[in-house]
Amino acid sequence: MTLILLPTLFDRIRIVLIATSHPGNIGAAARAMKTMGFERLVLVEPKSYPNVDATARASGADDVLANAVVCDSLEQALTGCHYVFGLSARERTIPWPQMSPCECAQYSADHSEAEIALVFGREHSGLTNGELEACHYHVQIDANPNYPSLNLAAAVQIMCYELRLAGAEGVVKGDVLPAPVEELERFFEHLEQVMIDVEFLNPEQPGHIARRLRRLFLKAQPEKQDINILRGVLSAVQKRLRSNT
Amino acid sequence: MTLILLPTLFDRIRIVLIATSHPGNIGAAARAMKTMGFERLVLVEPKSYPNVDATARASGADDVLANAVVCDSLEQALTGCHYVFGLSARERTIPWPQMSPCECAQYSADHSEAEIALVFGREHSGLTNGELEACHYHVQIDANPNYPSLNLAAAVQIMCYELRLAGAEGVVKGDVLPAPVEELERFFEHLEQVMIDVEFLNPEQPGHIARRLRRLFLKAQPEKQDINILRGVLSAVQKRLRSNT
Repeated sequence: MTLILLPTLFDRIRIVLIATSHPGNIGAAARAMKTMGFERLVLVEPKSYPNVDATARASGADDVLANAVVCDSLEQALTGCHYVFGLSARERTIPWPQMSPCECAQYSADHSEAEIALVFGREHSGLTNGELEACHYHVQIDANPNYPSLNLAAAVQIMCYELRLAGAEGVVKGDVLPAPVEELERFFEHLEQVMIDVEFLNPEQPGHIARRLRRLFLKAQPEKQDINILRGVLSAVQKRLRSNT
Repeated sequence: MTLILLPTLFDRIRIVLIATSHPGNIGAAARAMKTMGFERLVLVEPKSYPNVDATARASGADDVLANAVVCDSLEQALTGCHYVFGLSARERTIPWPQMSPCECAQYSADHSEAEIALVFGREHSGLTNGELEACHYHVQIDANPNYPSLNLAAAVQIMCYELRLAGAEGVVKGDVLPAPVEELERFFEHLEQVMIDVEFLNPEQPGHIARRLRRLFLKAQPEKQDINILRGVLSAVQKRLRSNT
């Protein structure tokens, strides 16, 4: 008899804060997470950490703060993730697949073997377009249109609250996971290079086309094996190009 | 043709904070309210208000802060309310009717003509038993049992978030409202006096019996007319007692 211990929703969620300006907000976010049972905090280029203000606002959640992982890039922060949700208050030029906080939480609970990241942007400017394009889904917390300015820790609190509610009712599904995001990123780089090699893409202006393809593949959620096949195709193209020159 | 403009859920909700210690939390609560579209803040005996920390943390919600009503007592803060919800993290000796945040929000949205208060206690000790007994329902935000210590503004944020979600789908029901709480309070005082007059209640120890009757009548939600009848009965008893002596 084999006993398989699956990670709970609480183990599978990482909260990623990008370039937080006020260390107090990092502490308050750690507290918000811990009150809802979450402990995995990842900080991308925090302006100041560790910091006494962070510790003060963390209150009894100083363990979450002390165990926070600090990264140099969002890519590093997302290593190993199967699904990435970006919190966004603004509409964007290329509309991305959207979920409400409740839908995001339910999705996270239902995909019971997936490693999941929720990404929160800077206090004043949120996430850049590039950061949002690293996400499978955008999540918008419904807010007062005249004053949608949620505090960072307040947004973390709401998302962790919804995740906790969903976690209580989550069911275990034997679903097939998509490839982790870092493999997808390597595929995107490879694809872009091949499109440049075949002179389909102007290397000076890859923007619009690359973005649409990124959105397409994030939506398709290719599995590891799909990525292997796709990259095999790309490599074959490059090999053929080299032999022709 | 008559056009009746009913107050929206956003107009009917007041957020009551009792004896808040840290003015920063008052400001953060004002901000949390405004992001979700709520503006009516009531402060019962705040330790320090107005205060520069409150203004700083309110950010763009300084109008909510400036319009906050300051009261000397919870009774004053609840004047005109039809339903009162008390936020509580602890279990109590006499269990009161309970609702989840989501149920509280739905109830508030469904009773579309009611004036509603959500009452939040002190940062460290919450609401006293007496304060909780002024509420129709207790609302507990599900939290990590090992660290249930939500920041005051974080609790306000979650409740206002749930109210906003419910407000978006609220339907107008032509329901009959219960008597406002101040009329109920006068009835409780009257009832207790009569129970003492007839030597049913020991004036030194009214506690347990008075509390159970309070819970019963809060649950029954008597209308204005019911209260008039009940108080008529009490007055008749007193009149009869006086004529007998």
